[in-house]
Amino acid sequence: MGRYDDLMSLSLRKGFLIPSAEIYGGFAGFYDYGHNGARLRRKWEDLWIRYFLGLGENYHLIDTSTVMPYRVLKASGHVDLFTDILVYCTKCREPHRADQLIEAATGTSGEGMDADQVKAAIKKNGIRCQRCGGPLGDPVPFNIMFPVAVGPQGEDQGFLRPETAQGAYLSFKREFEILRKKLPLGLAMVGKAFRNEISPRQGTYRLREFHQAELQIFFDPDSFETNLDLEEVNDEVLRITWAEEREAVTEEGVKSLLSRGSIPAFYIYHLAKVQQFYENVLRVPRESFRLYEVTEAERAFYNKIHFDVQISLDSLSGFKEVAGVHYRTSYDLTRHEEHSKEKMKVFHEGKRFVPHVLELSFGIDRNVWALLDLDYDIGEKSVLRLPPQLAPFTCAVFPLVNKGGLPEMAKQAYRDLREWTDVLYDDTGSIGRRYARMDEIGTPYCLTFDYESLEKQDVTVRDRDSTDQVRVPVERIREVLSQLLEGTTTFEALKVGG
Amino acid sequence: MGRYDDLMSLSLRKGFLIPSAEIYGGFAGFYDYGHNGARLRRKWEDLWIRYFLGLGENYHLIDTSTVMPYRVLKASGHVDLFTDILVYCTKCREPHRADQLIEAATGTSGEGMDADQVKAAIKKNGIRCQRCGGPLGDPVPFNIMFPVAVGPQGEDQGFLRPETAQGAYLSFKREFEILRKKLPLGLAMVGKAFRNEISPRQGTYRLREFHQAELQIFFDPDSFETNLDLEEVNDEVLRITWAEEREAVTEEGVKSLLSRGSIPAFYIYHLAKVQQFYENVLRVPRESFRLYEVTEAERAFYNKIHFDVQISLDSLSGFKEVAGVHYRTSYDLTRHEEHSKEKMKVFHEGKRFVPHVLELSFGIDRNVWALLDLDYDIGEKSVLRLPPQLAPFTCAVFPLVNKGGLPEMAKQAYRDLREWTDVLYDDTGSIGRRYARMDEIGTPYCLTFDYESLEKQDVTVRDRDSTDQVRVPVERIREVLSQLLEGTTTFEALKVGG
Repeated sequence: MGRYDDLMSLSLRKGFLIPSAEIYGGFAGFYDYGHNGARLRRKWEDLWIRYFLGLGENYHLIDTSTVMPYRVLKASGHVDLFTDILVYCTKCREPHRADQLIEAATGTSGEGMDADQVKAAIKKNGIRCQRCGGPLGDPVPFNIMFPVAVGPQGEDQGFLRPETAQGAYLSFKREFEILRKKLPLGLAMVGKAFRNEISPRQGTYRLREFHQAELQIFFDPDSFETNLDLEEVNDEVLRITWAEEREAVTEEGVKSLLSRGSIPAFYIYHLAKVQQFYENVLRVPRESFRLYEVTEAERAFYNKIHFDVQISLDSLSGFKEVAGVHYRTSYDLTRHEEHSKEKMKVFHEGKRFVPHVLELSFGIDRNVWALLDLDYDIGEKSVLRLPPQLAPFTCAVFPLVNKGGLPEMAKQAYRDLREWTDVLYDDTGSIGRRYARMDEIGTPYCLTFDYESLEKQDVTVRDRDSTDQVRVPVERIREVLSQLLEGTTTFEALKVGG
Repeated sequence: MGRYDDLMSLSLRKGFLIPSAEIYGGFAGFYDYGHNGARLRRKWEDLWIRYFLGLGENYHLIDTSTVMPYRVLKASGHVDLFTDILVYCTKCREPHRADQLIEAATGTSGEGMDADQVKAAIKKNGIRCQRCGGPLGDPVPFNIMFPVAVGPQGEDQGFLRPETAQGAYLSFKREFEILRKKLPLGLAMVGKAFRNEISPRQGTYRLREFHQAELQIFFDPDSFETNLDLEEVNDEVLRITWAEEREAVTEEGVKSLLSRGSIPAFYIYHLAKVQQFYENVLRVPRESFRLYEVTEAERAFYNKIHFDVQISLDSLSGFKEVAGVHYRTSYDLTRHEEHSKEKMKVFHEGKRFVPHVLELSFGIDRNVWALLDLDYDIGEKSVLRLPPQLAPFTCAVFPLVNKGGLPEMAKQAYRDLREWTDVLYDDTGSIGRRYARMDEIGTPYCLTFDYESLEKQDVTVRDRDSTDQVRVPVERIREVLSQLLEGTTTFEALKVGG
């Protein structure tokens, strides 16, 4: 069984990611979150919000609707340009996404090709249907937005949003006013987006309904740099794959990158902050991380500078995109100004201009999948080594046996803990069996009440990763767990009497 | 200006609820959350999750997709029965929802009427178009789900889900297995639902895209009661409006209701728990709350017992539904068993049966609106008296003046606080002006650093509701704010040196 199957098995057995409408045989391109996946995702979102809103004093969370009117997506360019090239097999009628077809056949990306280029590539390389080997038809552009007809006669044409970003652009004018006309202004959103993918595949990696966490930073390109504390990232060494050096990773320090002058300082700062998020918060190993420069041909129509954030995943055979840093310039606000007739120019520090946008965009489902891949340690015992703050459950409470006052004591601790954190109660099977169940869903701490606990009013806390144990007084449980979660103490320190 | 306009003005000025695509003139039935609204809503969700998952040891959060395949909603009955009666004006072509038209014209509800009954009522009462006075056409049933065509040729017909509930029913079988076959089992979801309302109106009250928080409890009807701690609600006095006593509120104790025997104990227990959530957690005044019995004619096709939760709102001229308690029996699981051919019967404590479902269903947007209505206190000063745990920002940090080391000290405190809570920094205008800004968005605590702070390493904490102030050592800020939020101390106690 390969790594992908191992992860999918964990996912189904433990309730992380599950095909939607499974009892009806599934629904291609749609996945659900089971009870462990839903908590893991919500915790990832909480960490993301805390970290990225923390990049600026004027950065805020908003939430806009997922159905958007036609005019908005016409203005943004999505109605005309948000297309993939679709090609059908003339024999079995299987639809194919042309760029994927070309990449599979030639090993080089077909991204960014138009219909004519695809036609030429198919001819040149003799590409045929992946499914039945039949001849392929003429390639056509296919818009991957889902239309939604609103109103009793469908008179208000809309679409499910293809990205959360547009909601932030529409909100800019009002939020800029409310937030007292300061730049940079950050508007973050965490929510669903929808794309009618031609051939959804690779499990949860390319979904038709997916979750994004996006931060749109509106700024003055002349002065953004002066608002950032470059000192904070000065010593960071970035792991970059340059467009001309596919696929090699080059390590280069921030200072050196800044001195080159080819990429703006504000952009380098944010690449470094994103890398720090993956290294320090999500604990992704350095060698599994890279920033991947995207060429002009591959970039979306609105991006001037674009690096993908990629993580190397055994389950998907190599580096895969989980996020992106996009310098969208003033493109979006200018388009909305033209189409809505609302002025997007601001008067700021003596200058009148349309703010530029830097977008930090994260695919949440891909991040969740990546964490499962990186952290699922299959050995004699299977342990999901998630960072404690991301674990679906912070701790579990066990009575050693179901008698002699132990269940009552354990239940009381369970109820107290439930007031502030996510906790499970388990009184079935041997303690070893209960530890194993918790290890596999990543629960970092298990609390066992035994007869000594009754006497001494304490409990044995067991650490998932070291399997070490330490006795903690009952009245200090919450304090100790809080410190462990926040990293203000370690299990090692507790053992020597912290 | 009426109460509704006051609230809408607050909402727009401060970024709570804002019409979607506002710069394009809005999009009927769709609202966005601005930067204060988004945080308020997320905190409401966190409190809801903590409280309602806390009702059982085997209650869990899940999250399923919003686009659902045709077969699922055919099985659930929504394709055939999820309709409103639509009637057009023959003169101006304005669409009307028949039950609202009848209620507006006659004062009694038209809910549950079929097309023939509506036709008769229109004739009998001489009802004409509300807009132009023209004659009305023939009433027709109108399905209010949004269809979504999935796949390159739209070959996979789907709908945007009209309720989160169905996702939980589809997940039941797998989650029951994963969670080791225990009942009761609770599956909760917080997410969007969509209904193509014929005439969205009353601002955020009847939306086409809205947020639900729903808990589906799967149980054995013969033994559910024995799993519940009825003691916890024994002393609760419920505020009920019985179907036969419209609109009067009767207060009746839980013990008395139980002794009647007409409503199952498990149902009464959950009514009481929901009332406690509104009284104790959301702090809704007793007199503004009632549980409203819904008659058979008004009930949805899947409900056996149904009480609405209503809150009296000045902005909407009276009691309005914000939640509901629905006993859906085994209807949904049985239907999915028939249509999917997957067995939904469980073997539990020596018996084989299809579990019953109790649904606790909350409209989040309505709850947010209700809180704004109840808590917005317009006087000489305008104060949004939200419970501190729900306030968009827990606290704000001010330097008294922008010199002499005060900004540095205040900034440090701001950065430390940002690590664990939502905090604003404000150094503009007089302190009184800054307090006023915070009062209007409900920030419960303001921290001002003055010259004494530099000397004594402390800060003045000001309480929103009493406007009292107390000095707190810098190293105790987090501890004190945590205790205030959790209610383990009061501002009064702090003042006398707690």
